[in-house]
Amino acid sequence: MDTANIEKTRYAETSSKADVNALVRLCEADMASVNATITERMQSDVSIIPALAEHLISAGGKRLRPLLCVAAARIAGTTNAHHHKLSAAVEFIHTATLLHDDVVDSSQLRRGKVAAHLIWGAPSSVLVGDFLFARAFELMVETDSLQALGILSKAAGVIAEGEVLQLMKAYDVGLSEAIYIDIISAKTAALFAAASESGAVAAGASVEKQKALRDYGMNLGLAFQIQDDALDYGGTAASLGKNAGDDFAEGKATLPLILAIAATGEAEKDFWHRTVSLRQQQEGDFARAQALMIESGAMAQTIDRAKVYARKAKDALKVFGASEWKAALEALADYSVERTK
Amino acid sequence: MDTANIEKTRYAETSSKADVNALVRLCEADMASVNATITERMQSDVSIIPALAEHLISAGGKRLRPLLCVAAARIAGTTNAHHHKLSAAVEFIHTATLLHDDVVDSSQLRRGKVAAHLIWGAPSSVLVGDFLFARAFELMVETDSLQALGILSKAAGVIAEGEVLQLMKAYDVGLSEAIYIDIISAKTAALFAAASESGAVAAGASVEKQKALRDYGMNLGLAFQIQDDALDYGGTAASLGKNAGDDFAEGKATLPLILAIAATGEAEKDFWHRTVSLRQQQEGDFARAQALMIESGAMAQTIDRAKVYARKAKDALKVFGASEWKAALEALADYSVERTK
Repeated sequence: MDTANIEKTRYAETSSKADVNALVRLCEADMASVNATITERMQSDVSIIPALAEHLISAGGKRLRPLLCVAAARIAGTTNAHHHKLSAAVEFIHTATLLHDDVVDSSQLRRGKVAAHLIWGAPSSVLVGDFLFARAFELMVETDSLQALGILSKAAGVIAEGEVLQLMKAYDVGLSEAIYIDIISAKTAALFAAASESGAVAAGASVEKQKALRDYGMNLGLAFQIQDDALDYGGTAASLGKNAGDDFAEGKATLPLILAIAATGEAEKDFWHRTVSLRQQQEGDFARAQALMIESGAMAQTIDRAKVYARKAKDALKVFGASEWKAALEALADYSVERTK
Repeated sequence: MDTANIEKTRYAETSSKADVNALVRLCEADMASVNATITERMQSDVSIIPALAEHLISAGGKRLRPLLCVAAARIAGTTNAHHHKLSAAVEFIHTATLLHDDVVDSSQLRRGKVAAHLIWGAPSSVLVGDFLFARAFELMVETDSLQALGILSKAAGVIAEGEVLQLMKAYDVGLSEAIYIDIISAKTAALFAAASESGAVAAGASVEKQKALRDYGMNLGLAFQIQDDALDYGGTAASLGKNAGDDFAEGKATLPLILAIAATGEAEKDFWHRTVSLRQQQEGDFARAQALMIESGAMAQTIDRAKVYARKAKDALKVFGASEWKAALEALADYSVERTK
């Protein structure tokens, strides 16, 4: 076996471990710069602003979007450091949308902590979101890339459109799978795609590679969101994550619910109408919804759909030769649909 | 008298009419393009977005900020049309901040119409604000000017900071004039300055002229806001505009109030504490506040302050030779402090 084949085999093995850790390790040095930029740029003389931003940002989360931006720049062979500022900008846009979403949904928790608007009030959450959004654009301007700016500003508009569409379609038991995909493409996958594509653009990647990384991000985002929505009903394991049940309680029409409503038909029409359209829920309803999803095959179908997108994400990477970056991105795609929390 | 002097005299006469009409007339053709761009770019397949945006945008207002951007480009002798997209972007940023402010302040009215959040709900107002903000950046990207983008994104961050600062200082009878100026510099004058400066930048103006137009916008914005705050108490005429009394009812510490509290001293301390700090207001309180402002000289002082800024705005234009644009901008500065509504 020659060296190249040994390399390929090694990467193939790495990619078989479905996790985010390989990517996190590879991005460690880059993310230290990104995190320093995030901390520096959320400062303000108006003290409530960094306090509120810090509350949410320090709670962490996986920072998947900046990781994607870094990885895209790296796999495209960047020789500059623009992806640090772009990644910080991507995290600011994401944080701004979380702050506004939590106000919009009156959420109680975010990243395991009390939602910011419950501590500082909804007005402050709205305004600090605006502040972070503006700071994101300031950071992008400093990268001198109008193309990256165009990609991320377009994504920001699409996210807002997706959120409004979701708001309009709340409690809609007749929501089609197509509109569900439209909503999650906009509210989630658009920023994954833009983070990845803008990283490639900042690295000076070819148009073919820019498109490949955009496609990777878009499909990864769809896989992630569908798996999230499956896990909100416990997935197939029926082992529940800490926020499981939220979507059902809110009457949010996500894919497991849409497919379960279609699969159970007339027999369960009244149950779904009462629990989702009217949100008149009683003890045992959530367990019954979970059972119906598993028995009707809706949950398995949901996870199959997520796997199709994860497969597409990996396929998009075929323009790249074997590398530790490619293996890590493949592992991330597998992780997106194999995780159980 | 030679032709140049006749021209100068004519412009001097024009500028002695303190109004916004000369500028509106000069900008007519430009503003037709700006308005077409605004209408085109607020569209979305998510129908509630253009409906909500249209509600606020069609209500008009003077469109002072886009007018300023156009005028700055014109007085700097622009030979391109970038100021149309920039002006539309400036109006979108302004509209986004109005939507969010009305949610933050729970306002009932805006531009004489029911506030959007009372019709479509606060969540939609927040999200449509985000949408317009994103669209603003998309428009700016199309002008290919990173410098203009930098100016406007910085202003957007400063506006949010100003709004948060104002929120923190509500009902503060001890607010200093210096912090009041900080607040209005950020929440109002920063966008006037950025609109004007970015118009100059898009026109390829010299650094000296960019600075002059920034200074003009900043001082005009301060003059405008102080006069607005004076008119909220009826100014010296005691003839009230339709929203007069709002600031007092909300306990907002604006300049007439700050100066009146300082001028009336110990004698009226209890009155201001009850009506502003505690917002325990009864019939006759607003009339008494107005009377105290006039008798103590606080209102006259307030209007004097506004006039100082209007004067500074006009002084900033001295780098430009006489022209109908210069005369119109001078007339606007005069109008900002002589208007009675």
